[in-house]
Amino acid sequence: MFEFKLLATENRARAGLLNTPHGRIHTPVFAPVGTQGSVKAVTPAQLLSVGTSLVLANTYHLFLRPGAEIVQDQGGLHNFMNWSGPILTDSGGFQVFSLSKKNDIDDEGVTFKSHIDGSSHRFTPEVAIDIQHRLGADIIMAFDQCPEPYNREINEKAMVRTHNWVLRCKAAHGSTNQALFGIVQGGVFPDLRAESARFITELDLPGNAIGGLSVGESKSELQSMTRLVADILPVGKPRYLMGVGSPAELVSAVSNGVDMFDCVLPTRLARNSAAMTRSKQMNMKQAIYANDTRPVDIECSCYCCANFSRSYVRHLCKAKEILGATLLTIHNLHMLHDMMQDMRDAIIAGKFGSWKRAFEDSIGS
Amino acid sequence: MFEFKLLATENRARAGLLNTPHGRIHTPVFAPVGTQGSVKAVTPAQLLSVGTSLVLANTYHLFLRPGAEIVQDQGGLHNFMNWSGPILTDSGGFQVFSLSKKNDIDDEGVTFKSHIDGSSHRFTPEVAIDIQHRLGADIIMAFDQCPEPYNREINEKAMVRTHNWVLRCKAAHGSTNQALFGIVQGGVFPDLRAESARFITELDLPGNAIGGLSVGESKSELQSMTRLVADILPVGKPRYLMGVGSPAELVSAVSNGVDMFDCVLPTRLARNSAAMTRSKQMNMKQAIYANDTRPVDIECSCYCCANFSRSYVRHLCKAKEILGATLLTIHNLHMLHDMMQDMRDAIIAGKFGSWKRAFEDSIGS
Repeated sequence: MFEFKLLATENRARAGLLNTPHGRIHTPVFAPVGTQGSVKAVTPAQLLSVGTSLVLANTYHLFLRPGAEIVQDQGGLHNFMNWSGPILTDSGGFQVFSLSKKNDIDDEGVTFKSHIDGSSHRFTPEVAIDIQHRLGADIIMAFDQCPEPYNREINEKAMVRTHNWVLRCKAAHGSTNQALFGIVQGGVFPDLRAESARFITELDLPGNAIGGLSVGESKSELQSMTRLVADILPVGKPRYLMGVGSPAELVSAVSNGVDMFDCVLPTRLARNSAAMTRSKQMNMKQAIYANDTRPVDIECSCYCCANFSRSYVRHLCKAKEILGATLLTIHNLHMLHDMMQDMRDAIIAGKFGSWKRAFEDSIGS
Repeated sequence: MFEFKLLATENRARAGLLNTPHGRIHTPVFAPVGTQGSVKAVTPAQLLSVGTSLVLANTYHLFLRPGAEIVQDQGGLHNFMNWSGPILTDSGGFQVFSLSKKNDIDDEGVTFKSHIDGSSHRFTPEVAIDIQHRLGADIIMAFDQCPEPYNREINEKAMVRTHNWVLRCKAAHGSTNQALFGIVQGGVFPDLRAESARFITELDLPGNAIGGLSVGESKSELQSMTRLVADILPVGKPRYLMGVGSPAELVSAVSNGVDMFDCVLPTRLARNSAAMTRSKQMNMKQAIYANDTRPVDIECSCYCCANFSRSYVRHLCKAKEILGATLLTIHNLHMLHDMMQDMRDAIIAGKFGSWKRAFEDSIGS
């Protein structure tokens, strides 16, 4: 049921087709984040209308609330959230460190306190896989340790632990309808990244992810680590760069051979009154939009831009109307989907190089 | 362009058709409230999907933000909020008393301070009409004084003032594309209500409203005042009971001859995790719904009930996801629209009496 076909390449950039039990995904693809089983401020119908083909949900959040058993009892996450397309769940690894009130890590797993009510829980690789089995996503992630990227000793230990854990995840997973992806760690250290990429590659999992980036490192470090890892990862498997979602970073990573992305950026910006275009962010609360009859993005065909003025969107944002968040979420997701599709078309047409140069000219980079 | 046709009556209950410059309204009708030019938590497309045919917007709010001139510059409220159907604006009379930080009333008008920034403003009948001209709603309301209902002296003065003001509104309005409705006041005092209803009737305006109710009086006072006034108002003009939106009150008022309603109840309840059915409110945060696979209302066909479980809606409400408010708003508005349509069908079929008895049995009243 799970299969990746590479359709075209141009230098490192790739266009592909990912078949999953819940439908096909054209790559490169950007996945909106539905942390708690809902992409914030939009309905599944609105998600479909902006072209979304893959949704990410967070294991940590759904485990704590409503609980994996409830999601399972409700027919799994697809049924629970009424999303019949492909879903990817992360492992909870990132969140137990970044969100929990307190966490203690050892070689077996992580004990942490819930950010919601302070209750104590323990994730191990086996627990993370069990929860993801119950949630039932098409793509599930190995449990990893994601440290800050600059301390070599910590990153070395975290990498070794992540490697031990992915073996346990693979063993716990067995063969099911869900595709398990491994995660490369190693901070900003080229030798660790290369070692980790080779280790993960050898596991021959159906897909591979680059973790531990977009967590505070520089733009050039993000790019060089992405390229280094992507060059080692197998050509025939999808490559997923976790947590990246700005237009410039997406274009750069696609040019370095990445196929899949997720990020809260477009949805979070929307709830903070920011509209994304390929070249900039627009703070829609600005007074310059007060009486502007043009759509948010004059080149966009989304429901927001086809039907509402900057003046109205500004009013909604100033007046704290929920509709402001909804319309900007629709726009931002549509804009990113549209850009990913453009890149895919360009790669297939063998014109990604010139497309990328035009993009970089337009953003002044 | 503005015309009301009475299609059927059964005792006091009426079914009609209201033609407006922006389309037809089947009556009895419930109008959702879009206070700031947005029915909270839903898009215009979602409003259409629940059957909404008339939206109310608040003059006070839109005057303060974004300002009537901006709405006018943006092509009027229909264009601004992308609602091509009929719109009704209130006069701001109710809000300058209930929402503003401070207000001083005199026979000429009201000086008040904005609840947003404390800035000082003055509404007169002429100003209220001018703002409503700029907003451009199909139905506009006379500027009235809406006092608490129990003090006879205050209500007598407010009624006289309201009568003077409606004359000034009528003079300021002239003949345009917008239908001006007068408002009956008089608190809970039958003689004042009768006097006010006769005064307003004699103005021969295209429609008439019953104001100053649903502001703290008892259920039986609401019913008796509604019936008393509706019996005096002309048969051939639409009758609008302001601020009523609970199923039992709607059924009662329809049986007393009212044609139009508005209320924040369904949208406000939705944002507070409450689902409405004809017979009860369901607090969707309750633990009993945690693993309930049924839709919110098993008899409902709305987008929420057709696609999501109580378990999921409860999860959204507990997790404070915006989608919870959106789905419950869709359900609550659909439920009320459906009930209004049922009443209309029953009146046309001459079966409203038995419909109402069945309704009252079902709610145990």
